[in-house]
Amino acid sequence: MIDIYSTERLKNFLPKIKSFVEDELLPIENHLLTTSFYELSPLLEEKRKIAKQLGIWAPYLPEREGGSGLSLTEFAQVSEVLAWTLYGHYCLNCQAPDVGNIELLSDHGTEEQKEKYLKPLINGDIRSCFSMTEPENAGSNPVILDTKAEKSEDNYIINGRKWFTTGADGASFAIVMAVTDPDAGNYQKASMIIVPTDNPGFKRVRNTPIMGEPGEGHDSHSEIKYDNCKVPVENIIGKEGEGFYLAQQRLGPGRVHHCMRWIGTAERALDMMCQRASSRSLGGDTLLAHKQTVQNWIAESRASIDACRLMVLNTAHMLETVGSKNARNEISAIKFYVANMLQEVLDRAIQVHGAYGLTDDCILSHWYRHERAARIYDGPDEVHKSSLARQILKNYGVNKK
Amino acid sequence: MIDIYSTERLKNFLPKIKSFVEDELLPIENHLLTTSFYELSPLLEEKRKIAKQLGIWAPYLPEREGGSGLSLTEFAQVSEVLAWTLYGHYCLNCQAPDVGNIELLSDHGTEEQKEKYLKPLINGDIRSCFSMTEPENAGSNPVILDTKAEKSEDNYIINGRKWFTTGADGASFAIVMAVTDPDAGNYQKASMIIVPTDNPGFKRVRNTPIMGEPGEGHDSHSEIKYDNCKVPVENIIGKEGEGFYLAQQRLGPGRVHHCMRWIGTAERALDMMCQRASSRSLGGDTLLAHKQTVQNWIAESRASIDACRLMVLNTAHMLETVGSKNARNEISAIKFYVANMLQEVLDRAIQVHGAYGLTDDCILSHWYRHERAARIYDGPDEVHKSSLARQILKNYGVNKK
Amino acid sequence: MIDIYSTERLKNFLPKIKSFVEDELLPIENHLLTTSFYELSPLLEEKRKIAKQLGIWAPYLPEREGGSGLSLTEFAQVSEVLAWTLYGHYCLNCQAPDVGNIELLSDHGTEEQKEKYLKPLINGDIRSCFSMTEPENAGSNPVILDTKAEKSEDNYIINGRKWFTTGADGASFAIVMAVTDPDAGNYQKASMIIVPTDNPGFKRVRNTPIMGEPGEGHDSHSEIKYDNCKVPVENIIGKEGEGFYLAQQRLGPGRVHHCMRWIGTAERALDMMCQRASSRSLGGDTLLAHKQTVQNWIAESRASIDACRLMVLNTAHMLETVGSKNARNEISAIKFYVANMLQEVLDRAIQVHGAYGLTDDCILSHWYRHERAARIYDGPDEVHKSSLARQILKNYGVNKK
Amino acid sequence: MIDIYSTERLKNFLPKIKSFVEDELLPIENHLLTTSFYELSPLLEEKRKIAKQLGIWAPYLPEREGGSGLSLTEFAQVSEVLAWTLYGHYCLNCQAPDVGNIELLSDHGTEEQKEKYLKPLINGDIRSCFSMTEPENAGSNPVILDTKAEKSEDNYIINGRKWFTTGADGASFAIVMAVTDPDAGNYQKASMIIVPTDNPGFKRVRNTPIMGEPGEGHDSHSEIKYDNCKVPVENIIGKEGEGFYLAQQRLGPGRVHHCMRWIGTAERALDMMCQRASSRSLGGDTLLAHKQTVQNWIAESRASIDACRLMVLNTAHMLETVGSKNARNEISAIKFYVANMLQEVLDRAIQVHGAYGLTDDCILSHWYRHERAARIYDGPDEVHKSSLARQILKNYGVNKK
Repeated sequence: MIDIYSTERLKNFLPKIKSFVEDELLPIENHLLTTSFYELSPLLEEKRKIAKQLGIWAPYLPEREGGSGLSLTEFAQVSEVLAWTLYGHYCLNCQAPDVGNIELLSDHGTEEQKEKYLKPLINGDIRSCFSMTEPENAGSNPVILDTKAEKSEDNYIINGRKWFTTGADGASFAIVMAVTDPDAGNYQKASMIIVPTDNPGFKRVRNTPIMGEPGEGHDSHSEIKYDNCKVPVENIIGKEGEGFYLAQQRLGPGRVHHCMRWIGTAERALDMMCQRASSRSLGGDTLLAHKQTVQNWIAESRASIDACRLMVLNTAHMLETVGSKNARNEISAIKFYVANMLQEVLDRAIQVHGAYGLTDDCILSHWYRHERAARIYDGPDEVHKSSLARQILKNYGVNKK
Repeated sequence: MIDIYSTERLKNFLPKIKSFVEDELLPIENHLLTTSFYELSPLLEEKRKIAKQLGIWAPYLPEREGGSGLSLTEFAQVSEVLAWTLYGHYCLNCQAPDVGNIELLSDHGTEEQKEKYLKPLINGDIRSCFSMTEPENAGSNPVILDTKAEKSEDNYIINGRKWFTTGADGASFAIVMAVTDPDAGNYQKASMIIVPTDNPGFKRVRNTPIMGEPGEGHDSHSEIKYDNCKVPVENIIGKEGEGFYLAQQRLGPGRVHHCMRWIGTAERALDMMCQRASSRSLGGDTLLAHKQTVQNWIAESRASIDACRLMVLNTAHMLETVGSKNARNEISAIKFYVANMLQEVLDRAIQVHGAYGLTDDCILSHWYRHERAARIYDGPDEVHKSSLARQILKNYGVNKK
Repeated sequence: MIDIYSTERLKNFLPKIKSFVEDELLPIENHLLTTSFYELSPLLEEKRKIAKQLGIWAPYLPEREGGSGLSLTEFAQVSEVLAWTLYGHYCLNCQAPDVGNIELLSDHGTEEQKEKYLKPLINGDIRSCFSMTEPENAGSNPVILDTKAEKSEDNYIINGRKWFTTGADGASFAIVMAVTDPDAGNYQKASMIIVPTDNPGFKRVRNTPIMGEPGEGHDSHSEIKYDNCKVPVENIIGKEGEGFYLAQQRLGPGRVHHCMRWIGTAERALDMMCQRASSRSLGGDTLLAHKQTVQNWIAESRASIDACRLMVLNTAHMLETVGSKNARNEISAIKFYVANMLQEVLDRAIQVHGAYGLTDDCILSHWYRHERAARIYDGPDEVHKSSLARQILKNYGVNKK
Repeated sequence: MIDIYSTERLKNFLPKIKSFVEDELLPIENHLLTTSFYELSPLLEEKRKIAKQLGIWAPYLPEREGGSGLSLTEFAQVSEVLAWTLYGHYCLNCQAPDVGNIELLSDHGTEEQKEKYLKPLINGDIRSCFSMTEPENAGSNPVILDTKAEKSEDNYIINGRKWFTTGADGASFAIVMAVTDPDAGNYQKASMIIVPTDNPGFKRVRNTPIMGEPGEGHDSHSEIKYDNCKVPVENIIGKEGEGFYLAQQRLGPGRVHHCMRWIGTAERALDMMCQRASSRSLGGDTLLAHKQTVQNWIAESRASIDACRLMVLNTAHMLETVGSKNARNEISAIKFYVANMLQEVLDRAIQVHGAYGLTDDCILSHWYRHERAARIYDGPDEVHKSSLARQILKNYGVNKK
C-alpha cells in the first residue's frame, strides 16, 4: 500500500482481502492449477459464499448494489492482491469480462436490461461474455468489423464470426459488437447488442485451445458464429452507432484493472523468486540467493514493479480526478509498460526456478503461458506506442500521415 | 547452406531432407500439433519407413551402420532443416535423447550392450532415455547427485529419485547416472548404468506435465524412482567412475545438435513472421509488413539467426578439427547465445501473429512454451556465462574463488 | 507537476523557475555549451544576481537563511526544471557538491565553521568541494580508504591521494574524508575534515580531463595530493569516526537530487526528440515523426520518464515522512533505475538527431558524455542492485555470504 | 584468426601487423590519446616509414602498386588488429576516407587523375576527403542533395554546403557529390567531382567540434562551403550521373572495413575489461573478476564479438565470391549488428573501469564518444533494418509502400 494512495477505507478493507487470498486460495493453489473449471466449480462457489459473508463481494460496486463502494484507485490496490494466485478475482466477482459488462450495463443499460441481465450477473448467478475480436481482422485496428446486425422489423439479424470471446462457454449472454450502419463514419457504425447464448443463432464453434490448454467455462476463449441470429431491438445497449463510444468508456478503467492484476502477479513472482533463491542450495553454504545475477534480477524486478504500481495508481487517480480524456496518454503508457514488466519478471522468476518453473506444478508456468497475451489483447504494444507518440507529437504540429 | 561449410555430399543430401520435411511433415503440421504421441505413432512409423526408403535414416551414423556418414558439421545443417516443424528428428531417428545414447553406446558400449541395446535403438525398434537430473539438486551443479548405485556381488543396487527423464514413458531402457564411489573426487564418483525399464526397481512415478501438456511417450519428461533397482554389473557403460567423463563426451556434439535445432526453429519462425506480415491487412492497402516495427523485427531476426548459424557451424568445425577441449569456450558460448536468440525470435513471431500466435493451432505457441526450456536444460545461461568467463579470465591469472 | 505531489507553495514557485530557465538560460544555451567556466563566470554571476532578485536563490534553505524553505519533495520538482539546460542549478546555488556541503555544515557544523565556511557558501561568494574517492580503491566499496589524518597535538596531518574531487579548481575549501582511527570498525574509522585549499599541504595535481573536456572551475574533477597537510582539530565536522555516518546522511537527499536532475535532462531530451522528429523531412511530406521506430522511442521515453519521476517523488516523500532508514530500498532503486533510463533516453535522442546530435553544438552530445557517469558515481549500478537485493533477501532469512 | 578464413599469406602477414601495433603504437597510446593531430604528425610520419620498411604499407593494394595484394577477407583480419588502438590504420595508409578514395580512383580514375591524385595518395604524401553529407538533408536518404554542379563551358560551377567532410582540414583534394542533372532519376542525377582544396571556391567553414573535441587534420569533420567553385570538367570521376553508382561500389567493401575496425576495437575493449577485472581488488581476496555480473559481461562480449567476426568474414567472402549484389542483405545486416555490438561492449568495458573509464587517460572514453557515430554514419541502424527487411519481404510479394 503506497501511503499517498491510501485511505481509511482501504486500510480497513485490504487486510480482509489479504486474509481471504492467504487463507482460502493460496493453500489450494496446486489444486486450482491442475483442475479444470467445471470440476472446480462447486469449490469456487463455496469460496464465493465466503467472500459474500466477509463483505468483500464485488467491492467496486456502490454499497446499495451490494459492493463496498471502493473508488477505482482503492479497488486497484485490492485487485493487485487478488492477482497473487488463480481465481482471486473470480471469487469476488471481479473477473473480466463480467466486471466490464457490469459497469457497462450499470451505466448504460435500460431498466429491463438491468433487471434481466445485470442483477443476476452482480449476484454471481450467471456469467457473461464480450464478443468483439474477429479472426479475419486485425485486433490492432478495431474499427474494421465484418459482423453485421441488420434491422428487420423489431429485430436485429446478426451475422458474423468472432473469436477470443472469453468465457462464452457457460455464459448466459454475450454482448456483441456489430455493424449497424456500414455507411456511417468509422467510429459511428457499430453498436453493442445483448445476445442470450441460448439463442439458436448463437453458435459456439469451439473453445480455442490456447497455450496448451483446451479451456473450459470461465477459462475459455471461444469462437462464435452468429448465424442469422435474431434478437429484439430492445437488446441494444445505448443508442445505435454508440458501440465504439461505449467500448471507449470501458477502456480506461479496464486497463487499470488489467495492469493492477499484472502487478499483483509480478509481485507474487518476485516473492517466489526470493523464496526459491533463499532455499535452493548450490552446494556447500552457497544459496542461489548469493549469486549476483539472481540479485540483479530481484533488484531490477523490485524497482520496475514499484515503478509500474506508481504509474497505474497515478493513472487511476487521474481518471477519477481529471477524467479519461485527460488521462489518455497515461492509459496508453501503462498498458504496454506494465505488460512488458510482467513478462520480464515472469521470465526471470522461471529462470530462478529452473526446470521446476516449467512444470505445471508451478503457477509461474501458467502465467508465463497465459500472460504472454498481455502484450497483445486490448491493443498490442505497438499500437499503444504509436498512439501515445502521435498524441504527444500533435503538440509539435505533427498530423497523422 | 553456407558456402564455406558446404560439401559435395551435403549438396546432394540436403535437398532430400528439405523434400521430406516439405512433403511429409509440413502438410500435416496441424495434425501433429494437436494429436498425442501414442495416437500419432502409427503415422510416425509410416514416415520413418519412408525416411529409410529415401536413404536419409540416421544420417549421422557411418554407412556400415545404416547411416550416411555425415560429419558433425554436415549433420548440423541437416538438423536445422529437420527442426522446421515437429517430429523431423524423430522421423529420421535423430531425436534426443536417443541420438546421444546411440553415440554413447557406439563409442563406449561392450559388444553385448551393442547387440542388446544399440542395434534395436539404431533401427528405431525401441526408444531409450537418460536419467540424470534430480529434483532436490540444482541442475546447474551436476556433480551433486543423491542417487546411489551400490555394488552387491555381481549387481548394482540403485536407489534415488530422478526427474526430467525425457522419453522414459515407453522407453525400453534408461541410462542412469548414479554415484558408485561417494568418496572419490567430484568428477570420479559417478557412473552410467543401463537399466531396462521393465526392471521392477524402475518406477515411473508420473510424466511431469510441462507448460500445459501432460506429455506422453517420446514427448514426456518423467519422474522416476529407483527403488532397490538391481541390475548386473555388466550394465555399466565404460568403467566405474567414468560417468562424468562420458557425460562430458556427449556435451560438445549434444550442444551443437540443440543449437542447430533451435536455429531451424528460429528460421521457420522468421519465415512465418514474413508470411504473416505480408498477408495481414491493417486496412486499406497497408500490410503488417509495411510497419517499421515489424521490419525491425525481421531484420534483427535475420541478422541474429545468421550470426548464430555461423557460430554453431564454426564450433562444429572446430570440434572436428581441433577437438572438444580446444572448442570448449565456443561450446559454452553457443549454448546461451543461440538459446537467447531463439527466445527473442519466437517472441517477435508471436507478436506479429497476434492472438492467433497464442492458439494451439499455431506451432509458435508450441515452441514458445517448450523452447523456454532451452535456457535452462543442459546448464542454464548463467552457468555457461560464468564458466566461459572464468575460462577466459584464467589467461589473466584469475583463479576461481 | 504531478497533482498528488503538488502544493500551494510549489504552484506559486515553479512558474518562476520555468521562466528563469526559459528566459535567462535556454536562449544562451549554445554559448554556455561552448564556453569554458572561467570565461562564463561574469555572465553566470549576473544570472545569479537575477536569481536572488527573483527570490528563487537556494530554495531548499529555510527562509531565515535566505531560501524559500521548500521541502525535499517540492525542491525535487524545482530541480527537474533546472536540469533542462546547463548551469540551472549553479545559477540558484543548488549545484553539487556545494549543496551537499551546505546541508552538512548546516546540520553538523560548529558555529565557527558556519560563520567561516557556510555563510559565504550559502551566499555564493565561495565554492567548495568534497574529497572522498581515491584512485587506488574501488569506489564501489567506500570503506576502503588509504588517506589518513593523524592527530599531532592540536592538528590533523593529512596524507593521501584523492581524485574526482569535483569543483576543487577554484574552491575555497575541501571537505576531505580521511581515516582517523585505522583500528576502528569499518564504519567508524573515518572522519570528515575541512581543508582550506590555500593550505600548502593541499596540492591540486591536475584537473582530470573527462570525456574530451579538460574541465575548469566548477566544471572540473581534480586529482588532489594531501601532502602532510596540517589543519587544526577544530576543522573536523561532527565527531571523530563519524565520517561514514555523515556521508550516509548526505546520501538519501543526494540521490533524490541527482535523480531529479536526470529526469529534467531526460525530459528535455524527449522534447528535443519531438522537436527534431516534427521538423526533419525525409523527403516528400514524410517527417521523421512519421516513422514508427521514432514513435516507439518517444512513447517508451514518455512512459519511462514518468515512471521514474513518480518513483523519485515517492522516495522523497518517504524520506520526509518515514525517514531515510525506511526508505533505504527506494533510495537504492531510484539510483540505478533512473540513471539507466537517462542513458537510454539520451541515446534515442541522439539517434533521432543523427550526426548533428554528435556535435558540440547540441547539448545532447554534452549529456551523452557527461551523464555516462551517472551509472558509476555515488555507487555503480551493480552495487546498488546487490545491496537492494540483499536487503530484500534478509526478509527471507538470507545472510550476506 | 578463424581457421576457415585463414590463408598461407595471412599466416605470414598477420604476425607482422600484431608486432607493429604492439611495438610501435600500444606503448605510446596515452601520448596518441592526448595529443592533437598536427602535433603528432612528425611521430606518425616516422611510424609510417617503419610500416613501409616492414612491407606492410597499404596491404590491400596489389603488389605492383606497392601493397601486399591481400584479398578483402584477408585485409579484414588485418584491419581488426589495426583497430586495437589509435592510428593503426593511418600508419599503414588504410584510413578512411583515403582508402575509399584510393579504391575509387584506382577503379574509375582517368590516367591523369591517377597520376595527379592517386599516386601521391597511395604514397601517403597527401590526404583527401569525401564530401557528401549535407546539413539540411537527412543522411538516411542520400538521394536528397542540394549541392549542384552546373556545367559552364569546360567547367563545373559547384555551389552548396556540406558537413562531416572527414579529414578535409589539411587534405589536398575533395571528392564532392553534386547534382549534375536535377531532372534525371533519383539515382542518376548526381556525379562525383574532384575539387583541389586550394581552389578559391572551396571554403572550409570550420572543423565541427564533435563529442568534446575540436578536431584537427585527419581527425576532423569539416563544414565546407562550395561557393561558385569552378573546376575543369575533366575532374569528374566516371561519367556524369554515375555518382550514386560509384557510391554504391564503395559501400560493400567500405562496410566490411568499418565493421572489422569495430570488431578490433571491441576485442581490445574486452581485453581491457579482463585486465581490469583481474587486477582490481574489491577488498580481501575478492577481485572484480569474481563478480558474476562482470563475468556475464565478459561472456556475453566474447560471444557477440565472435558472432560478429564470423558474420563480417562471411560477408567479405561472399563479396569476393558471389558479388556485392548477392551479398546485399549480409552487408546491411553487419552494418547495424556490429555497430550495436560495439556500443554494448564499450559500455560494459567502461562500467568495469569505473570512473577511470570516463577519463581521457583511458582509450575507452575516446571510443565511447567517437564510436557512437557508428550507428549513424553510412546509414543509421533504422535505415539498414528497414532496407534489409524490405529486401526479404520482396520474396513474399511485398512492395514498398
